[in-house]
Amino acid sequence: MILYEHDTSGNCLKCRMLLNELGLSYESVSVDLFRGETRTDEHFARNPDGRIPVLELDSGETISESGAILLYLAEGSDYLPSDRLGRARVAQWMFFEQNRVEAELAVARFMRLAGRDRTMPLAYAQRLERGSDALEALERGLADGRSFITGETYTVADIALYGYVHCAGDAGTDPRTHEHLAAWLDRIEARPGFVNDLAPFPDYASQRPI
Amino acid sequence: MILYEHDTSGNCLKCRMLLNELGLSYESVSVDLFRGETRTDEHFARNPDGRIPVLELDSGETISESGAILLYLAEGSDYLPSDRLGRARVAQWMFFEQNRVEAELAVARFMRLAGRDRTMPLAYAQRLERGSDALEALERGLADGRSFITGETYTVADIALYGYVHCAGDAGTDPRTHEHLAAWLDRIEARPGFVNDLAPFPDYASQRPI
Repeated sequence: MILYEHDTSGNCLKCRMLLNELGLSYESVSVDLFRGETRTDEHFARNPDGRIPVLELDSGETISESGAILLYLAEGSDYLPSDRLGRARVAQWMFFEQNRVEAELAVARFMRLAGRDRTMPLAYAQRLERGSDALEALERGLADGRSFITGETYTVADIALYGYVHCAGDAGTDPRTHEHLAAWLDRIEARPGFVNDLAPFPDYASQRPI
Repeated sequence: MILYEHDTSGNCLKCRMLLNELGLSYESVSVDLFRGETRTDEHFARNPDGRIPVLELDSGETISESGAILLYLAEGSDYLPSDRLGRARVAQWMFFEQNRVEAELAVARFMRLAGRDRTMPLAYAQRLERGSDALEALERGLADGRSFITGETYTVADIALYGYVHCAGDAGTDPRTHEHLAAWLDRIEARPGFVNDLAPFPDYASQRPI
């Protein structure tokens, strides 16, 4: 398998986290989203949306969207329940993550790290406010004392959420001010199979349009 | 089953579309997102994120996030492939939809219909630009002449995408300027089981904070 990815991307980190947990070997090909390498004809052929991560299977087929890659890789493993309702719960938090965490906090994080919080203050504030509200929702989801977001088992929903929740401080809101969220982060980071090799943005990140 | 929903919500429309295709009966309970009814303790108990739609099963269990509800209901039907790669393709476009269509175009649509495009012009412009880019991605995804987004079969990925793509004009970008996207919309709207009962926003919609 080949994972087209970039070391600065939380969405790509999620894939690396699961691949490491599963002990799967793969080739990593770096595609620099800050240098426009995700928006070439070559990459559009892998993913019509021109983004990363993209997983290329040995058959040559490609799967994009971190959530779809996680669900594909986790099939049949302990990281994805086999029962219908259990799968729905995992999917629920993964859709929540893409809609409420990634689209708000990851964008707010990019804007803040690239100085757009000063040039587009209301746009930044809206992303941050909606993203902070998502962290409160997550805190409510964990408030009954469960170990992981869908219960006592660590699943791809936790991995998906970890990607941008753990670095929400970069966006302007510290996730560890939430009691249950802080304990959940600790629990994930204490796992034997845990990796977090998310790289800082390069100097030229601010040149990327958004 | 009970569907907690609102007639103005594209995310709720998706559930109604699939329920109608499947011929399933359910009770509809209206929860007015513009009057704060999704942010009560009663509704937080159904969905920690305080949003709609929420599907309550006969067992009393609840599932939120339109994508998770669609995947749950479609299990074992023609609207969701049974093979691993086919499911991954459906999931790919459903995550794309929540991250790139819903989070950008549905928010831009709300902002424009509620007059926020004038009070927060850069925030609105950013949502619209990113959402318009998502429509271009979708056009690329359909450009090989396929009938539906994952191939020749109508799946929950098409239903999920239809929810906010068909009304992207309200957000400020006409989806029908894209050739393949226009044909795809026509194909969905010509289906015997098609319903679109999306209601206009009420007069008091602009009072909702965002």
